[in-house]
Amino acid sequence: MSEKNVIIGQSGGPTAVINASLCGIIRESLARKNQIGAIYGMVHGIEGFLDDWYMDLGTELSQDDLELLRLTPAAYLGSCRYKLPEDLDSEIYPLLFAKLDKLNIGYFFYIGGNDSMDTVSKLSRYAAKNSLDVHFIGIPKTIDNDLILTDHTPGFGSAAKYVASTVREIVLDSSVYRQKSVTIIELMGRHAGWLTAASVLARKHKGDNPALIYLPERPFSLEQFAKDIETELGQRRSVVVCVSEGIADSEGTFLCEYGDQKLQACLGREPAPADDAQISPAMVDIFGHKMLTGCGKVLERFVRERFGVKVRSAELNVSQRCCGILASMTDIEEAEKAGEEGVRYALNGQTGIMVALIRKNDMDHYKLEFCPVDVNAVCNREKTVPISWISEEGNDMTEEYIHYLLPLIEGNANPPMKDGLPAYLYRKIKFSN
Amino acid sequence: MSEKNVIIGQSGGPTAVINASLCGIIRESLARKNQIGAIYGMVHGIEGFLDDWYMDLGTELSQDDLELLRLTPAAYLGSCRYKLPEDLDSEIYPLLFAKLDKLNIGYFFYIGGNDSMDTVSKLSRYAAKNSLDVHFIGIPKTIDNDLILTDHTPGFGSAAKYVASTVREIVLDSSVYRQKSVTIIELMGRHAGWLTAASVLARKHKGDNPALIYLPERPFSLEQFAKDIETELGQRRSVVVCVSEGIADSEGTFLCEYGDQKLQACLGREPAPADDAQISPAMVDIFGHKMLTGCGKVLERFVRERFGVKVRSAELNVSQRCCGILASMTDIEEAEKAGEEGVRYALNGQTGIMVALIRKNDMDHYKLEFCPVDVNAVCNREKTVPISWISEEGNDMTEEYIHYLLPLIEGNANPPMKDGLPAYLYRKIKFSN
Repeated sequence: MSEKNVIIGQSGGPTAVINASLCGIIRESLARKNQIGAIYGMVHGIEGFLDDWYMDLGTELSQDDLELLRLTPAAYLGSCRYKLPEDLDSEIYPLLFAKLDKLNIGYFFYIGGNDSMDTVSKLSRYAAKNSLDVHFIGIPKTIDNDLILTDHTPGFGSAAKYVASTVREIVLDSSVYRQKSVTIIELMGRHAGWLTAASVLARKHKGDNPALIYLPERPFSLEQFAKDIETELGQRRSVVVCVSEGIADSEGTFLCEYGDQKLQACLGREPAPADDAQISPAMVDIFGHKMLTGCGKVLERFVRERFGVKVRSAELNVSQRCCGILASMTDIEEAEKAGEEGVRYALNGQTGIMVALIRKNDMDHYKLEFCPVDVNAVCNREKTVPISWISEEGNDMTEEYIHYLLPLIEGNANPPMKDGLPAYLYRKIKFSN
Repeated sequence: MSEKNVIIGQSGGPTAVINASLCGIIRESLARKNQIGAIYGMVHGIEGFLDDWYMDLGTELSQDDLELLRLTPAAYLGSCRYKLPEDLDSEIYPLLFAKLDKLNIGYFFYIGGNDSMDTVSKLSRYAAKNSLDVHFIGIPKTIDNDLILTDHTPGFGSAAKYVASTVREIVLDSSVYRQKSVTIIELMGRHAGWLTAASVLARKHKGDNPALIYLPERPFSLEQFAKDIETELGQRRSVVVCVSEGIADSEGTFLCEYGDQKLQACLGREPAPADDAQISPAMVDIFGHKMLTGCGKVLERFVRERFGVKVRSAELNVSQRCCGILASMTDIEEAEKAGEEGVRYALNGQTGIMVALIRKNDMDHYKLEFCPVDVNAVCNREKTVPISWISEEGNDMTEEYIHYLLPLIEGNANPPMKDGLPAYLYRKIKFSN
């Protein structure tokens, strides 16, 4: 029998380095010509593949393309947010495996976060149950850094570098005027504050901004926030505050859901309403996750009405996950390596695993190794920031967190430039069928 | 009599290269030791100087500091938004000139936009009227590129590079999912669309995004917008739209001022209200300029309700003016040169002028020269994008604009890095008195 083929998919939100992992898998597969045949890419993940959207990566991408791909942000193959049925007896599984069989797939790589590891878990369990010889490997990816059993996830370091650098520039910008002002920066992070916490690196000397940092790991109190702002305004002209989009009060209500009436009640201007009419529930996506943007605007209004100072708020939005020019070279190299390791594990016969990143410092020098972990233990779980890494007051990060983060943002991507802009790789809109 | 001293101020909004101009003035002044004595910096512009906030730049900054300053965004000296009285008989003028006299100032440099040139104009007219021997020179600076009598303004090229690069990454990000979607990007630009227009450089091949670009130079019609979106959604999955914050309808109402009722009327769901209750007037700053953010959210809602597709909007906000990592090296060099030229003009006895940038292409090769122009002719006027550089349909830019812009975003700043972030220069909070 001829060598088995490889198929690769990307899933979930884009990152600056998900394509570096793709590049790692392709290059390592090309290097194993005696063991691997064709290298296919699913277009728009498992969802697109179910409609026969795939491409032949091994023949379509030149060596130059691969070098560009490595530094191109977002998801070259396209992505999806698609949940396979819990019931392994669902008719979708034989359908999907027939498609894999038709392409003679022996090795299946899926690059993604929590929800994508759920896909790897289900497919590997179905294969085991039905004695099908396909190896399923998950390559971690998420700017949220919320996967368990791995020191960190590829994508996080670049997003953290973007956040730290951008907050730093906004801090400089916010300091130019003489009058007292508060600047609120809303950062991505639904339940885990890893990325918001990265804003601490923007602080370069004692008394520098950001002055206050709030993560979703601790309940957020508007009263305490008001006290914190008052203290800071007494000590400096410009107060910069960084908050996770997912901060919630002690009753679990997200700040971005605070309606007018609730805010007025918090300002002591109206009696607290008796029912929940005060809340404007957030919209929900197909995975049932609430869409949590807007707490910056709520806090902006609160500060303006409470303190009467100049206030503005900014959402750093999707650039956090797709800024290639500020990608961390450490992150790019680790993402690529994770892809390569995945190929090695698959060829060694492993399946149902995720490639984990293990920090093995050599003295105090940052060093990383890789190891396979059971994907079933990873999926649908969430790693939040240790409470001990958040200051006692709940509004700052400790040295331990800084020590953890610093190595991950080292090194610049320096993508090749053309006409003043980075030369990224675009997928030609063309599929195999 | 000993040599006269120099004083320098920064005014108006920050840019990525206003410090490069400061650096140029300092370096050229240091090089003219036989003609120039001390080099002072006003802290927070003319407003801070009136309170005796200034520093000695010649002694406080080392050569290494100057090299960092050149690549540091925002405004190192701090800025202000302060309008001198129209009446030159106001008591503020003798007060201010007494302070200049006390410091033995012979050369006054003010780096800023329209409103700052107004300051240079008034001070030079007062000096002329009272035969005072101080030379007043304006150095242009604004990301808006809206000063007349100059081909472009320092600060614009870097902001344009940031916009083009960031829109490009958002375009990649927006293309990863399969379902139809509209992404609306709101960009800075009150009355002049120069910066929004720069998003056209993000389009790298036929059929690429951004699909639609709207500037404030043309009246914006929601009906025409709906037709444009419908056409684009028929041709592609992801439609990216770039709009200036300052777009307004044919009656002069800013889109960001559209209230609920007005929007519902535009959606044909409610009869148009008879009065102006439909408008939510924007807040106004101290110069009487309306604060115009929010049209992206209005359009997002309109598209969601009209087309029922996935929509999101993003404001690129202050990073447009303070992103040092994406500064254009062409812009940095030109900003620095403008500062140097200003010193030469002042020493040649000129006053009441602004340093203008004149494009003198050599064949088709971009080439820039400098010349002094009457600051009285520049201040309080605004240069908008020529209508002939906007497509006939009012939703795209022509080749002429692209040809104009391309040279201005060439070259990378590559600031020195420390701990994974650019090493910028901070002002120590310490004043001369």
